[in-house]
Amino acid sequence: MGAEDHPMTRAAWTPVAHTAWTISDPFWAPRRATLFATTLASQHTQLRESGRLSRLGIMPADPARAGSHIFYDSDTAKWLEAAAYALAERPQAQLRADAEAVIAGFERIQLPDGYLNSHFCAIPEQRWSNLEHDHELYCLGHLIEAAVAWQAHLGCGRLLACCRRALDHVWRRFGPAGEPAYCGHPEIELALMRLWRLTGDERARRLCRLFVDRRGRAGWFARERARGQARSDWGRDPDEFQDARPLADERHAVGHAVRCLYLACGALDLAQDEDDAPLAAAIGRIWDSATRRRMHVTGGVGSSAHRESFSSDWDLDPFRAYNETCASIALMMLAQRLLAEGPRADAGDILELALHNGVLAGWSLDGNHYLYANPLAVDPGWDGKTKHWNGRAWGREGWFGCACCPPNLARTVAQLGSYAASTSGDELALHLLLAGDLAAGGWQLALDGDWVRGGRLQVQVLAAPAGGKLHLRLPGWSAGTRVIRDGAELPHTEPGYLRLEGLQAGSRLEVIAEMAPRRIHADPRAEALTGRVALGVGPLIYCLESCDHTHGLEALQLPEAAALSLGEPDPVLAGCRPILAAALALKPGKGGPYGSQRQPLEPARLTAVPYCLWNHRGPGAMRVWVRGSN
Amino acid sequence: MGAEDHPMTRAAWTPVAHTAWTISDPFWAPRRATLFATTLASQHTQLRESGRLSRLGIMPADPARAGSHIFYDSDTAKWLEAAAYALAERPQAQLRADAEAVIAGFERIQLPDGYLNSHFCAIPEQRWSNLEHDHELYCLGHLIEAAVAWQAHLGCGRLLACCRRALDHVWRRFGPAGEPAYCGHPEIELALMRLWRLTGDERARRLCRLFVDRRGRAGWFARERARGQARSDWGRDPDEFQDARPLADERHAVGHAVRCLYLACGALDLAQDEDDAPLAAAIGRIWDSATRRRMHVTGGVGSSAHRESFSSDWDLDPFRAYNETCASIALMMLAQRLLAEGPRADAGDILELALHNGVLAGWSLDGNHYLYANPLAVDPGWDGKTKHWNGRAWGREGWFGCACCPPNLARTVAQLGSYAASTSGDELALHLLLAGDLAAGGWQLALDGDWVRGGRLQVQVLAAPAGGKLHLRLPGWSAGTRVIRDGAELPHTEPGYLRLEGLQAGSRLEVIAEMAPRRIHADPRAEALTGRVALGVGPLIYCLESCDHTHGLEALQLPEAAALSLGEPDPVLAGCRPILAAALALKPGKGGPYGSQRQPLEPARLTAVPYCLWNHRGPGAMRVWVRGSN
Repeated sequence: MGAEDHPMTRAAWTPVAHTAWTISDPFWAPRRATLFATTLASQHTQLRESGRLSRLGIMPADPARAGSHIFYDSDTAKWLEAAAYALAERPQAQLRADAEAVIAGFERIQLPDGYLNSHFCAIPEQRWSNLEHDHELYCLGHLIEAAVAWQAHLGCGRLLACCRRALDHVWRRFGPAGEPAYCGHPEIELALMRLWRLTGDERARRLCRLFVDRRGRAGWFARERARGQARSDWGRDPDEFQDARPLADERHAVGHAVRCLYLACGALDLAQDEDDAPLAAAIGRIWDSATRRRMHVTGGVGSSAHRESFSSDWDLDPFRAYNETCASIALMMLAQRLLAEGPRADAGDILELALHNGVLAGWSLDGNHYLYANPLAVDPGWDGKTKHWNGRAWGREGWFGCACCPPNLARTVAQLGSYAASTSGDELALHLLLAGDLAAGGWQLALDGDWVRGGRLQVQVLAAPAGGKLHLRLPGWSAGTRVIRDGAELPHTEPGYLRLEGLQAGSRLEVIAEMAPRRIHADPRAEALTGRVALGVGPLIYCLESCDHTHGLEALQLPEAAALSLGEPDPVLAGCRPILAAALALKPGKGGPYGSQRQPLEPARLTAVPYCLWNHRGPGAMRVWVRGSN
Repeated sequence: MGAEDHPMTRAAWTPVAHTAWTISDPFWAPRRATLFATTLASQHTQLRESGRLSRLGIMPADPARAGSHIFYDSDTAKWLEAAAYALAERPQAQLRADAEAVIAGFERIQLPDGYLNSHFCAIPEQRWSNLEHDHELYCLGHLIEAAVAWQAHLGCGRLLACCRRALDHVWRRFGPAGEPAYCGHPEIELALMRLWRLTGDERARRLCRLFVDRRGRAGWFARERARGQARSDWGRDPDEFQDARPLADERHAVGHAVRCLYLACGALDLAQDEDDAPLAAAIGRIWDSATRRRMHVTGGVGSSAHRESFSSDWDLDPFRAYNETCASIALMMLAQRLLAEGPRADAGDILELALHNGVLAGWSLDGNHYLYANPLAVDPGWDGKTKHWNGRAWGREGWFGCACCPPNLARTVAQLGSYAASTSGDELALHLLLAGDLAAGGWQLALDGDWVRGGRLQVQVLAAPAGGKLHLRLPGWSAGTRVIRDGAELPHTEPGYLRLEGLQAGSRLEVIAEMAPRRIHADPRAEALTGRVALGVGPLIYCLESCDHTHGLEALQLPEAAALSLGEPDPVLAGCRPILAAALALKPGKGGPYGSQRQPLEPARLTAVPYCLWNHRGPGAMRVWVRGSN
């Protein structure tokens, strides 16, 4: 089978290869150029300077390894995966050489029995002793993902060969005849499905099934704890590592958000390929729980800093939002897998929302600074103890001790095109309305416009398969998106996927979304958002930053009647336009904290900027939700 | 010197003895009758059944002690203290016998060198090994408080003799020539000041000074940790145990709330008696921080469940409010000490607020059930993980593993009168407007009315010292309290203490407060209260309970224009009257959590009941802050 192809059952739709695109989108192309020109090289430097690469070269005795991290390999692997996507799009000799040296390192350290992990290869007597906390299968999963990318996009099978030897080892150890174990951090499940889809190796799919089915049943972590292996409080509550019940019985998005969503991705791949309706239904419930009751307005999930976890329904306190960047990426990954069953509006909308807000906020315009947590409110004066996210949220950092997010961002942006469209036979679905050239499934499209900032896209059909259908996503944030086909406006365009038939070479479409600044109100069950309103323009959620205001952000109030307008495009904000409004500000009280009188108000100017670009103008306060009218 | 008398410097005012009162107040007298008839006996049973008392009788080898708690003695001591106040007011043979048996137990276990602690007397080799966590001086402090009460009010010096032997021991060990230690949980400081004021033993005052001055300077806890003594994460942040800086340099109420406020009490006693203006100023800053920026509307403090701590300024999230009952009691204790410097409106107001709300909510009408934490919002559906207080907040419990609050409530209510009034020479200040007979400082007053529920008090002067002044507290919650003196209404009565001169036998006063239901608004800096309003009548803060509503409490909205009225007195609510209003309810959204439309509203009835009586009608949801108008 070819790259990323697979025998489809429920998964009738396949993401296009990112190389099917030539992205010229005025919002995204500069960010991707930064990725290729700067980010990948700087991440390689970070990998090297943090000791991650030296561990691959100098075995077994390296003093630098003393402080090594058990999941170092996963960061290296995500960078390798990102490098594969980048190299497939535009060859770069240095990047290729750096990456191949890393691959050679993994070849070098692999043990004769196939075991592969740069931390434990040096201390093999400790391997597999603590699957709950040691991330060995997690790291291998990311290596498999990288190996699949190198084989599929570059035809380079060196890492894949390593991973298949590692698979032999894992199959012997944890396969049907082995120990009934599974990993404390899901990830290998989805990687095994990618491996199976690429190679057809049935053991990969069967291992995925075993790892999914053992969770919540086999009690592996309890066995390890009984052997005295617990190294952490993490996971003591079995919900944290998704081990409280069989996955098919799950009703909510629970526990560590990245773990939860990675597991859901692998399990949905499996359920789609094995036509396991109960398992697919459980993943659907997890998706609904995550996106309908436990997601911040930015597409941030894992609202609780406690174990980076999903919280309870409607616990969406903007002042305690955690929202790991990786969790929003995982939400995109799950949306992509749901879209494998066909276009569905909620998955497309949340894919776009998470990408442009919860994910992109984690990455600086210079390409080399990152947020790990993505708060919805920041004050410089907070002490970092009572607001748990503060330790990491003051501003973007060049790297982290736990550096999962930066290379995850890199591989996501590098393969952006594969999130943007999918095909099924002669049908093509556009999920993200990127400007660029797209060739996939017999279609050739030339897309032009500035969707993110302008809400307009012109589609020129250069080639279309006979009888093919184009599914065009009309976003939920636009109340009345106009679609003009060959000069004639289509009636009744509702948000969701617009199915267009009869397109052929020469057909032209224009999509015009509602780009007036808009207010966003929360469901009243999200009580922490009482009396608050958020703002957005197109796919971008906006926020307030203190550098634009003379009043404290906590005092600003945007009356329901206040008109919102757009300012001029701001080069400092990547050409985005701020939202401007004549607002009010409450004067702080002079007496005690409580009084019988409502606070007096005075006029104030309000300026909102895209959340994905916050913290680019020095440190300061930030608010996504502003005091509104009840 | 006599009971509770002391040489005054800054502390010119002395609380009256609680026995100066015969309380007939229609709100408080039934609660105190329950205390005397039920609570003290049931607490004795709890002390016995939990093993606290057996440890005093069966030394040294008692299997029940295996699970003993290092601060068991403090609970026993607070109960002994409460018993002293109760017995001074009304002799009860059984209570006296039970209490004296406990005192005999402490006599029995005391080691020859004076050491006294039922946990460590059995394992004396471990004593004083970990002052940071082992609460030995804390427990001794409570025993000293009980001993002072037994001596002062009952003339029984047995426990005092024990404590003075223990003081000998502590003086040798930690006095000027001893180790520069101090306790991880302040309490002994204020107890030593009570002991000094009772006995004149200078060592007590000097030890208090040492314990106060060593904090934040001597680094005792760090020394213990260096010896490998740390038994807990608690205190790792030195702010948690008030050890980050010298107390005189403190600018905020920080760390564990009870620790912070107990320390402030002892330090203020010391500062007043030694005329230490810088130290008194620091306590003033702590008071301002605690009450003006870090206190919930109920008088609850220690808003964070993390280490039961004060949080940062304005972090007053009603959905995460912790508010230990003991912390509000400690706030009353500090208010009482501030009032020793003379009447001041904020101290009197917060004394009344904390007592009637944050404290009283912790004690059931049946007298035998308690809250440890006092949330401002409860939902039955929350899972107890993401809302930290939930584990304890579903409803009142009969006892706790850490049972500091129940006997603290008992001793507070038992000595209620001493909080209600204080004297300075021929001046008398009334802080709480209790109905009853009061004889103190040459004054004899007959007070009648139902202040809490009716806002009216008639004062009949039966005797007054020549030239004496009466300071009558007019509450901050009443915009226009009327005072009628001998039939003539006084002009210009502002909230605060009204000084009345020239009163004599036969003088009559009537105080009439504004008892219309009122809205309470929060300072805008308390952002978690955005768009919310609280309700109150007189000294009582109100709340909503789900049993009174057909709509979910999260959906109810009280428009600013909605009229508030009072319902009929409800016998289930201790005769209080509910607040009634025609309100609105938001309909929950059907789509995702966020939308461009404001939620539609429908009419709804709103009923609010006193917060101090919540959770008396079965489990359910509760909200202090209701959605209002911005």
